[in-house]
Amino acid sequence: MDLSDRAADSLAALRETKPLIHNITNMVVMNETANALLCIGALPVMAHALPEVEEMVAYAGALVLNIGTLTDELVDAMVLAGKKANELGVPVVLDPVGAGATKMRTAACQRLLAELDISIVRGNSAEVAILAGLRGEIKGVESMGAADDNAEVASTFAGQYGCVAAITGAVDVVADGERLYQVSNGHPLMGQVTGTGCMSTTMVAAFAAVEKDYAFAAAAALAAFGLAGEKAAVGAKGPGSFHVALYDELAALTPEALRAGARIR
Amino acid sequence: MDLSDRAADSLAALRETKPLIHNITNMVVMNETANALLCIGALPVMAHALPEVEEMVAYAGALVLNIGTLTDELVDAMVLAGKKANELGVPVVLDPVGAGATKMRTAACQRLLAELDISIVRGNSAEVAILAGLRGEIKGVESMGAADDNAEVASTFAGQYGCVAAITGAVDVVADGERLYQVSNGHPLMGQVTGTGCMSTTMVAAFAAVEKDYAFAAAAALAAFGLAGEKAAVGAKGPGSFHVALYDELAALTPEALRAGARIR
Amino acid sequence: MDLSDRAADSLAALRETKPLIHNITNMVVMNETANALLCIGALPVMAHALPEVEEMVAYAGALVLNIGTLTDELVDAMVLAGKKANELGVPVVLDPVGAGATKMRTAACQRLLAELDISIVRGNSAEVAILAGLRGEIKGVESMGAADDNAEVASTFAGQYGCVAAITGAVDVVADGERLYQVSNGHPLMGQVTGTGCMSTTMVAAFAAVEKDYAFAAAAALAAFGLAGEKAAVGAKGPGSFHVALYDELAALTPEALRAGARIR
Repeated sequence: MDLSDRAADSLAALRETKPLIHNITNMVVMNETANALLCIGALPVMAHALPEVEEMVAYAGALVLNIGTLTDELVDAMVLAGKKANELGVPVVLDPVGAGATKMRTAACQRLLAELDISIVRGNSAEVAILAGLRGEIKGVESMGAADDNAEVASTFAGQYGCVAAITGAVDVVADGERLYQVSNGHPLMGQVTGTGCMSTTMVAAFAAVEKDYAFAAAAALAAFGLAGEKAAVGAKGPGSFHVALYDELAALTPEALRAGARIR
Repeated sequence: MDLSDRAADSLAALRETKPLIHNITNMVVMNETANALLCIGALPVMAHALPEVEEMVAYAGALVLNIGTLTDELVDAMVLAGKKANELGVPVVLDPVGAGATKMRTAACQRLLAELDISIVRGNSAEVAILAGLRGEIKGVESMGAADDNAEVASTFAGQYGCVAAITGAVDVVADGERLYQVSNGHPLMGQVTGTGCMSTTMVAAFAAVEKDYAFAAAAALAAFGLAGEKAAVGAKGPGSFHVALYDELAALTPEALRAGARIR
Repeated sequence: MDLSDRAADSLAALRETKPLIHNITNMVVMNETANALLCIGALPVMAHALPEVEEMVAYAGALVLNIGTLTDELVDAMVLAGKKANELGVPVVLDPVGAGATKMRTAACQRLLAELDISIVRGNSAEVAILAGLRGEIKGVESMGAADDNAEVASTFAGQYGCVAAITGAVDVVADGERLYQVSNGHPLMGQVTGTGCMSTTMVAAFAAVEKDYAFAAAAALAAFGLAGEKAAVGAKGPGSFHVALYDELAALTPEALRAGARIR
């Protein structure tokens, strides 16, 4: 079975299963990521209170940890939920928003990577590079690029932490220490809307809920999300109308369209 | 006066009065519910800090309590604001998001129902059933259905708690222990956008600010919101464009259009 | 150089520099203000945790403090970040959302104005009037008008606090105690979308990051934002489609278009 066929099957399985995706995430993108999850066929839930995160994650198909507007208490909730997810075999997807921009963000990611068995990290070039001990430049939460190319950065990270690393950019790369996928779907307008990175992380989590080969799940998710972005860009007049069309296209994306349009290698 | 005429009069009163609606609500839908309130003709305010909630609610026409991303401190703020609202005769509308999904959510709702005089509860089938001690299945914050039909669930809840129960679904039902309204406005796309349930709760609060028969206020609000949804679905290409059109149609909805289109019985 | 030419130059500088704008802001508009900043050409970051705000603001071109959903801890973070910004010469822009509506909001603004060197306050008529000790009426976070006209209110405030005061309304006014700018760009639909006031504050911050004459920066920003609003209103069917088009038009706004369309005097 070729990669496009597999990606199409994953999307079909996602639509069939409707997995619950538990998000402990930032305040900027809660609504947007919830809508992206609904559109792709998953059920989103946002829950971050310490007394309920373990119980909530027990029903989930995947757990998203996103440090975009972290506080110490939120990171505690992430650790609690993550340990329960690990115990139950629920995949944990980390979005290290702004790692490297402040010591607090870097330390939070290091703590999560040390205390939890993270399945997949999805970040931009600088975030992943900095966490891998390589050079990267970050301005707020925006990557100004890494010193090395993304394939090397992802492979290094994956080898160090024993998890899948997915770096999104002009071409997305996914590495698990052995294999390397490159996904060339997407559109430049995605970089002009806040939260598309965070949305891509939730897409990865949704696919990981139904596809246990996490490296491939990440690649398939990024192909699906990027393809929806390409379709949304057609006729968009700017970032606002593109953003709206992105939801429409995620919801309209069929396994057949993904089979025809996925560019994974 | 028939029900459609009454609903139209309520909308006209709402547009005339522009009541302030005080929301202590979840982080996922703050922007969306504020915009829905502005569109229907109310003035939204979001305020949840303990030192200010009593003062803010004193100016409000209704108070919304929504536990979608609850914390213990947020529930404390809800109790404080709710007691002041009760003292002043300001209607209190509860949205028990995810009741039954975790013990914390169920307990928070029970606390609010015990300590406050709640005017109206607006939830999905499973949430209301579970709080009424009936069987319901919930996945995250999504109802997988209740064991009994919604009319029975709502009537049981209303009888137990002495408040109006409004359950939204394919057909919305509103019960106050004696009367039962059924509202058949709405569109399936409403279920594909995050926060439409929460928006419907704020619509109920806005109508309750101007219509003291709370059961009818809930029915009229759900008819208005559902009718805007029907109109928004015309020409929508998916959940994204539907969501945008929903605001346009809420703002464009006239009392005359509601009189012609409301399906309340 | 006339005012329109200067405004066009400021926008060109902003697009060239892509300054990082650090926001400690409210939960209702985080996504919307981040998107508005991206569209105008800045890089947004939202960070409010005490351990990271000083480090984050050190990279910023401007700091936005917005009390829309304040808590005591959030105000502490604002003071911490603001002091660092003052030390580094980073302009600080305050949005006193709902000042006057509760004692907590008024006191928070007074604390921020006392402990920090605020560069610009951007608010509605009632908020600025009340903080200046003049009469204003506020309903939640909505101005019901000030007793005096906005030019007088802004001038009084600027004189008292030694900072620039920008009041948005049908005509925006900007005063620094000596000069007075009036900006007549804008459209009534801007008042029907939640967060346009907060967005205008971030636009002011983005321009202040590249234009050290803060009074003019505020005027140029309000002209740019208002002009985008005028363009967005063309073809909008209501607040929802207007909101979407506003992002498109902010992103599409060229220095040339601003030169031609700015109405500053």
